[in-house]
Amino acid sequence: MKTIGIGLLGLGRIGKIHFRNILHYFDQARIVAVADPLYSKTSFEETYGNIFFSKNEEEVISHPDVDAVLICSPTSAHAKSLQLAMLHKKHIFCEKPMDLSLQTTVELTEMARETQVKLMMGFNRRFDPDFMKARETVVAGKVGKVQIIKITSRDPGLPPIDYIKNSGGLFMDMAIHDFDMARYMMNKNVVEVFAKGLVMVDKAVGDAGDIDTALTTLTFEDGTYAVIDNSRKAVYGYDQRIEVFGNGGMLQVENNQHNRNILYNETGIHQSLPLDFFMDRYAESYLGEMKMFIDALVNNKPITVTAGDALAATKIAVAAKLSMEEQRPVRIEEIMENGFSAKVRPSQLEAVA
Amino acid sequence: MKTIGIGLLGLGRIGKIHFRNILHYFDQARIVAVADPLYSKTSFEETYGNIFFSKNEEEVISHPDVDAVLICSPTSAHAKSLQLAMLHKKHIFCEKPMDLSLQTTVELTEMARETQVKLMMGFNRRFDPDFMKARETVVAGKVGKVQIIKITSRDPGLPPIDYIKNSGGLFMDMAIHDFDMARYMMNKNVVEVFAKGLVMVDKAVGDAGDIDTALTTLTFEDGTYAVIDNSRKAVYGYDQRIEVFGNGGMLQVENNQHNRNILYNETGIHQSLPLDFFMDRYAESYLGEMKMFIDALVNNKPITVTAGDALAATKIAVAAKLSMEEQRPVRIEEIMENGFSAKVRPSQLEAVA
Amino acid sequence: MKTIGIGLLGLGRIGKIHFRNILHYFDQARIVAVADPLYSKTSFEETYGNIFFSKNEEEVISHPDVDAVLICSPTSAHAKSLQLAMLHKKHIFCEKPMDLSLQTTVELTEMARETQVKLMMGFNRRFDPDFMKARETVVAGKVGKVQIIKITSRDPGLPPIDYIKNSGGLFMDMAIHDFDMARYMMNKNVVEVFAKGLVMVDKAVGDAGDIDTALTTLTFEDGTYAVIDNSRKAVYGYDQRIEVFGNGGMLQVENNQHNRNILYNETGIHQSLPLDFFMDRYAESYLGEMKMFIDALVNNKPITVTAGDALAATKIAVAAKLSMEEQRPVRIEEIMENGFSAKVRPSQLEAVA
Amino acid sequence: MKTIGIGLLGLGRIGKIHFRNILHYFDQARIVAVADPLYSKTSFEETYGNIFFSKNEEEVISHPDVDAVLICSPTSAHAKSLQLAMLHKKHIFCEKPMDLSLQTTVELTEMARETQVKLMMGFNRRFDPDFMKARETVVAGKVGKVQIIKITSRDPGLPPIDYIKNSGGLFMDMAIHDFDMARYMMNKNVVEVFAKGLVMVDKAVGDAGDIDTALTTLTFEDGTYAVIDNSRKAVYGYDQRIEVFGNGGMLQVENNQHNRNILYNETGIHQSLPLDFFMDRYAESYLGEMKMFIDALVNNKPITVTAGDALAATKIAVAAKLSMEEQRPVRIEEIMENGFSAKVRPSQLEAVA
Repeated sequence: MKTIGIGLLGLGRIGKIHFRNILHYFDQARIVAVADPLYSKTSFEETYGNIFFSKNEEEVISHPDVDAVLICSPTSAHAKSLQLAMLHKKHIFCEKPMDLSLQTTVELTEMARETQVKLMMGFNRRFDPDFMKARETVVAGKVGKVQIIKITSRDPGLPPIDYIKNSGGLFMDMAIHDFDMARYMMNKNVVEVFAKGLVMVDKAVGDAGDIDTALTTLTFEDGTYAVIDNSRKAVYGYDQRIEVFGNGGMLQVENNQHNRNILYNETGIHQSLPLDFFMDRYAESYLGEMKMFIDALVNNKPITVTAGDALAATKIAVAAKLSMEEQRPVRIEEIMENGFSAKVRPSQLEAVA
Repeated sequence: MKTIGIGLLGLGRIGKIHFRNILHYFDQARIVAVADPLYSKTSFEETYGNIFFSKNEEEVISHPDVDAVLICSPTSAHAKSLQLAMLHKKHIFCEKPMDLSLQTTVELTEMARETQVKLMMGFNRRFDPDFMKARETVVAGKVGKVQIIKITSRDPGLPPIDYIKNSGGLFMDMAIHDFDMARYMMNKNVVEVFAKGLVMVDKAVGDAGDIDTALTTLTFEDGTYAVIDNSRKAVYGYDQRIEVFGNGGMLQVENNQHNRNILYNETGIHQSLPLDFFMDRYAESYLGEMKMFIDALVNNKPITVTAGDALAATKIAVAAKLSMEEQRPVRIEEIMENGFSAKVRPSQLEAVA
Repeated sequence: MKTIGIGLLGLGRIGKIHFRNILHYFDQARIVAVADPLYSKTSFEETYGNIFFSKNEEEVISHPDVDAVLICSPTSAHAKSLQLAMLHKKHIFCEKPMDLSLQTTVELTEMARETQVKLMMGFNRRFDPDFMKARETVVAGKVGKVQIIKITSRDPGLPPIDYIKNSGGLFMDMAIHDFDMARYMMNKNVVEVFAKGLVMVDKAVGDAGDIDTALTTLTFEDGTYAVIDNSRKAVYGYDQRIEVFGNGGMLQVENNQHNRNILYNETGIHQSLPLDFFMDRYAESYLGEMKMFIDALVNNKPITVTAGDALAATKIAVAAKLSMEEQRPVRIEEIMENGFSAKVRPSQLEAVA
Repeated sequence: MKTIGIGLLGLGRIGKIHFRNILHYFDQARIVAVADPLYSKTSFEETYGNIFFSKNEEEVISHPDVDAVLICSPTSAHAKSLQLAMLHKKHIFCEKPMDLSLQTTVELTEMARETQVKLMMGFNRRFDPDFMKARETVVAGKVGKVQIIKITSRDPGLPPIDYIKNSGGLFMDMAIHDFDMARYMMNKNVVEVFAKGLVMVDKAVGDAGDIDTALTTLTFEDGTYAVIDNSRKAVYGYDQRIEVFGNGGMLQVENNQHNRNILYNETGIHQSLPLDFFMDRYAESYLGEMKMFIDALVNNKPITVTAGDALAATKIAVAAKLSMEEQRPVRIEEIMENGFSAKVRPSQLEAVA
């Protein structure tokens, strides 16, 4: 059976996860080329050995052994890499989001539709085993007709303020995972967004023009709704819970904890905290999404997390920001009508093509 | 020590609870007179023995042995009873709400402020031991500065459609408890309401002009928020949970269950359902509120659940309905400005005085 | 319908519980006479009002309005009261145990068999709602054929050393409840006992000739077994759990806690402790056993907790002590053969009749 | 830094786990030679590639690149492999037990003491993260002075009857893990054993001369005790729990479950079962023990799970069987005095040396 040759763009935190996962867990895929502007050829080879390396991503993308490209570079570099990979007819796995600009995202989604390449977006949480099982339960009708989904999504701590400045903001950077989760779990499209945001964790976030606390209500096409509450900091760890309520019951997905030990003493009954690092909490999901991507390439199966999904989540994020600013519910169709207005970042693609 | 003589108006479900609680648990209070239009003197005495009884509530209210009146009659009768009791300078415990009309509620609140009587409103959930303990924890700062309170409030089943028709609607009849709970737990006032409602449980509710499913976002004066999700029917029982999240931690109040038994078998790990009847779930809260009322009378302490609290919750309910209808966030101050418009029931007090 | 006249012997802690329960919850029974050597007629009437009182229990037992006697006096007084009540043909509810002497217990059990009176033993835990539900589950075969029952039974704190000196020892005073629970839950007789005991809580217990920590293995007639671990002190509250394991599954009965609140903070996830006072933990069981007793009298139903049950539990307690002392498993039939030896207290009935 | 060359004896289920773990997770160790009588050189190389292979274990043990030997063959082959590895001065990781014969175990333990090789026994459960954390908690004194440890250890299903016939019996094959855990968690030696056994799962087990259900009481040198209940089959999965109770509190180690999802519906509240396969349940422990072994070799640290530990657990298993057969508590010192009697297997070493 053919082995998929993979070109990895970006050897940061997430790039390393995928590198290691492919090395250890997949017989049918192999990292054959790597690009990262922060490494020299020498420093790369010291750690990673005899693999083709270039500071220039196009050399990796166009490498004849490369069948598929993993885009793990910073968000600002995604659009160009996506364009190049499509140009070279390479399959693509791209970390979310495609781009901070809605217009660019729209254009890239169009482009992807036209090419024959397989493009999978890295909404890894869809591949968390508990969430997958939860969706299976919901889809099987075990909670009946769903009336509401409630997502609690709180990070264990603030990222650096510099990161926040370039993140596109809480809705685009953090809540976008939850917007995708809501769509995935409910299997419905969102038509309206009402969002509120606050600076409660650190004034510096506000100074950087962002919020660190948010509450978002999504209305689906059938009138049912989602509620998502976000915080950049929960002192007790990474809080990632989902509750789905329907006329047949309720499903809760609870947090993983450090351990299953319970201590009883004079002051109470004590358990360990939820896992506090996204790479621990979602370790299996990174493996799961890669498994799905490689399986789609090897066996020519359809991709299940598409550019269209990324675009849908991006629209919700844009609408959430607008809703917060204008203090009113915003309809998704507005975003498409007004989406290229001054309030929204212009396309980033000119500079690229 | 003086024993408080109590006149009970209304021997329905809730009136009977208070009757029995006073009989069994309080040495310092005694039911001395009862009014209920559905009993005859004979039928009353057969069951309850030698206590003054009248079909005419004013005979009970004005009875010389009556120091305080418990208003347990249907909502539509509350306003008149409140007026009469204040007229006769009797202390009052009144089931919520004062009245379905905001204007009447405002007028009665004014009236209560002017008289010297103690008037306590029956927001019993404040006296649930778990919620009391939770508030104590929050007030003690154990979750830090609070950022969000999430209330899940789902009934175990639909009330009769006839009840719904006269209930004032889901927000006024059911969610009003949660609006009060949000204010009580957070110790802050609400300034804005955004609400959505659906008919998901039974079409007949929609035909009756009401909703059975709702999602309400409250914004407090400091910009923090509450989310409340309501349903008239949870197949798994009475779902009454609260979550308070702050920069120092999170507090959850979980449901009581029928028992603490856990069955492991081939199909899973199984526990018993939440209690499914409000009189079981909140049994202790009915006792607790009465204890507080009698204590306030005997020891001349201030009432902690006032007409002002009832008015505040009523305003939120009115704003929620308006928000749902006009699909926009509604500010509480709007309600007071526009509160006597056609959209809102006129005062019921003319007919009474 | 006839009301049962009840004579109460002993107004201690447990006597007061039954007094109050009968007063508040039962229409078909009334306390008509009370005996307690520690009250004067005046002091009794000040608190309890116009009820027949005597320091002499026989005046209460023989009182013509007394249909049934509640024996709530110290254990050392039980045997005589039981004899007198049987003599006067009064029905009896007797706190456990009948007597510390096995021989006396045997003789009283014989006597009870001969008379026509209904005699119920106060193994209240059988009437705890969770344990009742658990037994129902086990009897319904929901864990299949039972292989083992594990009982954890730890008190929240040491009783006074003077109490311990007269208690008959941990097995007779404390573990006897668990021996009865094992028989009740399994519906089988015990044939062998292996017990170990330690002084781990307080040296003074050892000085008083008793242990405060024990582990007992019971073997049932079919070869299956129970394990019971006892401690006089668990710093985290009253620990009363049961686990039943069979070839179809496992049932756990967990502790009740003070509340259902959960606090998440930097140090962990924290819950409230188990209830720590037997009168709170087992409040419903005291009511339940009285309900059963009164129902048996009013409707002439059979008693379900008999003198035979008390005798069986007493035999296990005697065997446990012997096993601990002789460091070997002891068969119950040995106890009956050797039960009247020097190691076992002689009958207390001579002094009484 | 030096890389440890490892020779693997036995490519069965457990051998494969270690093979894969060393391949994926350890930079400082490498499998350099493999022996397994069931593979041919060709069939081995097809799957595992270019690694030295022999059907003859001595060729692997004596291979110059082999620094350490992993003994993963059937129990009956352990003694000979241990002898050979010690003869060739190779370090050893050996799956439990050393041998079914107590005498052989004693002799091998002596031999290990005399050689300079590092010998680690594969009591993998000591390296389960939850149990490690639990021990840390106990050792830190967080439950105070320990009074009792309770271990529940139930397999998800019966092994094949042929396996059982050669297993040495439930105590030696299955409970031995729990005996080791009791010693490890309590950090004390066992002086007495009282055990009971039954055939409750499958009559065929009895026909094979074994039991499938057991209850064992261990007494430690300070008089405190452990209780272990074993079953070969729990229909709800692999039940592996520990409870440690002391005068400062209680620690519980609960089961891992398939997922953290909770379904509420009309029939109850439902969770997923405990993991049901030992390789899933203890996956991390296999990795952990290997990490510890390799670390001990690379950094010349002492081994923490020694031949002495294996001997201690073996003695308890022998005593448990004797206790069950003779229906009396058996002291460990008896085993050493009488351990070579007809009841106990003679040494297997003659045939080997």
